[in-house]
Parts: sequence; structure tokens; C-alpha cells
Amino acid sequence: MKKFLNSPQTLLEESFDGFVAARADIIVACEERKFLRRRTLKPGKVALISGGGSGHEPLHAGFVGHGMLDATCPGQIFTSPTPDQMFAAVEAVDQGEGVVLIVKNYEGDVMNFEMAAEMTDGRCATVITDDDVAVETSTNSTGRRGVAGTLIVEKIVGAAAEMGMKRSEPQALGQNANRRTRSMGVALTPCTLPAAGKPNFDLGDKEIEMGVGIHGEPGRRRVPMASAHAMVEEIVKAILDDLAPRRGDDALLFVNGFGGTPLIELYLLYYEAARMIEAAGIKPARSLVGSYVTSLDMAGASITLSMLDDSSAKLWDAPVHTPALRWGA
Amino acid sequence: MKKFLNSPQTLLEESFDGFVAARADIIVACEERKFLRRRTLKPGKVALISGGGSGHEPLHAGFVGHGMLDATCPGQIFTSPTPDQMFAAVEAVDQGEGVVLIVKNYEGDVMNFEMAAEMTDGRCATVITDDDVAVETSTNSTGRRGVAGTLIVEKIVGAAAEMGMKRSEPQALGQNANRRTRSMGVALTPCTLPAAGKPNFDLGDKEIEMGVGIHGEPGRRRVPMASAHAMVEEIVKAILDDLAPRRGDDALLFVNGFGGTPLIELYLLYYEAARMIEAAGIKPARSLVGSYVTSLDMAGASITLSMLDDSSAKLWDAPVHTPALRWGA
Repeated sequence: MKKFLNSPQTLLEESFDGFVAARADIIVACEERKFLRRRTLKPGKVALISGGGSGHEPLHAGFVGHGMLDATCPGQIFTSPTPDQMFAAVEAVDQGEGVVLIVKNYEGDVMNFEMAAEMTDGRCATVITDDDVAVETSTNSTGRRGVAGTLIVEKIVGAAAEMGMKRSEPQALGQNANRRTRSMGVALTPCTLPAAGKPNFDLGDKEIEMGVGIHGEPGRRRVPMASAHAMVEEIVKAILDDLAPRRGDDALLFVNGFGGTPLIELYLLYYEAARMIEAAGIKPARSLVGSYVTSLDMAGASITLSMLDDSSAKLWDAPVHTPALRWGA
Repeated sequence: MKKFLNSPQTLLEESFDGFVAARADIIVACEERKFLRRRTLKPGKVALISGGGSGHEPLHAGFVGHGMLDATCPGQIFTSPTPDQMFAAVEAVDQGEGVVLIVKNYEGDVMNFEMAAEMTDGRCATVITDDDVAVETSTNSTGRRGVAGTLIVEKIVGAAAEMGMKRSEPQALGQNANRRTRSMGVALTPCTLPAAGKPNFDLGDKEIEMGVGIHGEPGRRRVPMASAHAMVEEIVKAILDDLAPRRGDDALLFVNGFGGTPLIELYLLYYEAARMIEAAGIKPARSLVGSYVTSLDMAGASITLSMLDDSSAKLWDAPVHTPALRWGA
């Protein structure tokens, strides 16, 4: 294992503290690193909280700030945060207008966020993301997994809350955005958990895992290494088959790196994916390319297609000022 | 070799086209992909052009836009662009106020940009970056190599030009920023050039290359794998010894990933580096953490320290709107 590391036991604290120090313009750390919150909370706004296991950076801490999350609770690597962390975050950022929790569909996360919601006497509404079309049920999830599309849901709900909508409305917009969003990924290599010190699954030198999850969960099939064109074709076909979009509609096309894949390759994937969705009659009216929802050092990428209407396009375009996404603010 | 790739012969064109398609809000491609330019040129402004071999994305194309570059010429992978490309870019973006060329100090780049400058009858002034303290002369350079600090020079010069300064002033500010900026990197793995299909140097499973160049050039020494703390200590010491900053001064601390290293590790490096420069009496008044000046898929990182005064801090903070850096605009 070759990583920048002092010890697996201190990695999360040190990386957390480095993040907070580097982004003190936007972020404040709270109470023994239970959660991070936006430096300037906005009175009267519905609060928005997410969280999940660490190892997917910049998700979620990189999306805390104006127009997106008010707080996030980082768990141990690939491990849900605790209800105690979430409860502390709710107490800290609730402005009296209630809270929307955005939760990726993994059993641990869903259970713990549910417990936290129960502890807050009805102040929390939940949006669960399950955008991964690769498999129906997986190692850590009943039903589909929540993956890179979670970023889009966080942006849409965050913009709605920032505009002053009351709690049920951002929640409904988030659920709707999740329904209109589909993703699928492919791994060229496994990732290595620092505490384990070895790859979290085996993959041959000439094999890829098509439909891999963001914790290295098995995908649809293990196949021989293929051209970028062939891989994108399989992913885009899986997404379009499932989403069945209407020809002529606009979409956000998001190509996401898993942590070990450079930008030059991600733009090649965008090139392939954009041509294929255009050939299917869909216009890539918005785009996002980068490593935003990662799996530690995994080489690989996912493609997300999110269908837009006037309302969701406006919410996507709305100002955002976070460490990892910034425009118009 | 596991990369997203159709063929080494088509990678650059496809990735270039994907980039231009994804960022058509900011970027226009010109004349058979000779160069990229800012969509909206600003009349009366000194123009700013950079360029160099591909494989360092988002450098330089990701820094084209308001407040930074007007155009960039991408070469083949790790290969200088041609004078012909640069001349075409000068012709396209010169607004009659002359052009500043920002050139990383490699023999091929310097020679070709000099030839292009000669072809333009005195319209071009040059800033050469050579911020790498690792070695004095390297495989492809006489004198120090230009590495991640180039981003800072491009930002400072770009802001000065955007504010309406005439040609000699941004050039002088860029030369001054380069003198106040020092970098050093470390490789955990080599990178793989697509056409070669194998790593561009050998590195044992438990070895690192301390002081590596951004094309995989040899550094100061090859040493056994060490803790993040020990690696950062060696790098920060090399930078501080060379820069000899005055205690109490402000600096921009930039932790840069080489392409295969995830953000969680880069923030750990930032944590270590910030504490060390603070212990040396330097305040990390500005920060930047991410993979901005890469070496294809190399795992590794560099640290850059750039000393700030009121003028350079103001230019760093000035609005920028490019694919890879954006704030205040």
C-alpha cells in the first residue's frame, strides 16, 4: 500500500483538520469532529444535513456552504456516522424551520439517520438517494445504492432551501431529482482501505468491474479490459434503458472520477457519453466533470444522467459557494 | 496499463473535444485544435497565453477564462506545442496591447515560445517559471523546472491584465511572483504514457522518488516509503531553506495532487504542511488543495509556498472564472 499516511488511526482526524484549516472561509468544525457546519448559518432557512462514511471526498464535506449543505457528519471510512453525530448536527443548524436529511441508500446510513430523526421529534424530513442502476440490491443496501447522483440531489435541495422554500418543498424536489437521476460506474482497480492495507477486492490486470459500487461492491459483471467507447456505451445504455427519457429533453451529464483517475481520462469519457446521449435525442444542457464522489484511490469513473426541467435547471444553476462546487456566489 | 482510452493516437483529440463540449460556456476551440481561447475576449486588455505538453490537466486549459489566460496551446503528451500553434494563438487573442507568454522552464517550451515571440515582431513579453527547488538542472531543463507554481503566476498575471495594467506591469508582477514561489514534489508511483503503455520509470513497491518532476524526471533521491509527516517535513524544509522567508509574512500554501492521489490524502498533506510553515513563523493566509498540475495518473503530490504581499494577495483574491478555478466572478 502506497498512500500519504501517518497511521490509519489518525488519518481521518488529520485530514479533517487539514480540510477545516484550508477552508476556514466557509467551514467550521464542531464538538470533537462530530460534524462540520457552514460558517454562516442563515436564519429562517430550512437546514440541510447529509453524511456518510468517509473515503468519498469531497462528498459530503466539500458541499457544505451557501446553496448546498448546512452540515455534514463524517463516519469512519466506508462506515455510517452515528445517530449521536447527526443529532448534534441537527441541534446546531436547525433554525426553527426544520431539517432535510439527505441519505444515501445503505442500510447503516438509513438506520442511523432514522434513529437521529426519531430523536428530533419530527423536525427532520428525509430524502433517500438510490441512483445506481447497476444492481437492484447490494452488499450494504436493500434496493439500489446511492452514488454520485447524491451530489445533484444535494445541489437541488440546497438551492431550494436557500431560496426560502419551506420544508416539504425542498424534500419533494429532492425526491423528484432522485427519481430523474441515474448513475453507473466501472472500476479499473480496487481501492485500498488504509486500515486493511490491501486492496478491498481482487481484479486481474486485464479485468474491470462493470457496475461497481462506491465502496467496491460487486457490479453487474467482471469483464475484460475494453475501450473507453465500449465501457461508456454499456453504461449509457444501462442508464437510458432504465430512465427511458423523452427525446428532446435536457439533461445534466456528470462524469465522476473515483479518486485515482486523472482529468484527461474523464474528459475522454465525457466526449463519448455526450455523443451517445445526443444520439439518443437528449441534450447535455449542463455538464460536470471531476472527481466528486470517490472511493479512496480507486481508478475508475461513473456516469450520471439527470433529466432537467425548467425548475431543476434553475435550481442547478442557482449560486453555490462550497469548497468543491462554486458558481454565481 | 489500465486507462480509459480508445487509442493513444486519438486520446488528445477526444479529450480536448470533451473538454470543449463540457465547458463551452467559457472556452472556444480554434483551427484544428491548435489552441483554445477564452470565449469572450476583452478589448484593450493585454493578452495572456500559456501552453505546454498535455498530461498535466487541468493545467493549462483549465485556467483559460476571465482573470487568467486568454489562450493556451496544448502539445502532445509531455511535449512542447509548436511555434506555429503559439503564433496562431497570438494572432487570435492580441487586442493590440501585446501579449504576455507564461512558459514553464523546459528546453522545448522555452525554445518554441521564443521562436513564436520572434515571429510576432515584439508583441510578446515572456515570464518563465522555474519554481521547483528539487534539482538545479534536469532531464529536460537547463536550470530549475517550472511546476505547480506556474498556476500561481498565471493567476497573478491574469488578474493584473484583467485590471487593465499595461504589458510591462503584469510581466514584472509575474516574474516577481515566480521569484517568491517555490515547490517540491514526491512520487509514490510513476505515470504511464498511453503510447508507451508502461510506467515511465521504475519505482519499487516500498520506494518513493523525492523531488520528482512533473514528467517523472528524477528528483533528489530515491528513498524508502515514509510517513506523510516525514515526506512533508523534507519538502517543506527544502522550500524554506531555499526561499528564506521573513518570519511573520503571509503565504499561499498550495498542495497539489499529481493525478492518482485522492483528496483525503491531499488534505492530510495540507494539515502537515500548514503546521510546519506556521512553526517557521509563516502564516498560510491563503490555501489551495487539489489536483491542478498533474502527471497523468501518477500517485504523488507537490507542495508550493508562495510568499504574499498586499499586492499579490489582492491579485490572487481577484475574481477568476475558468473551468478549474473560480471565485468572485
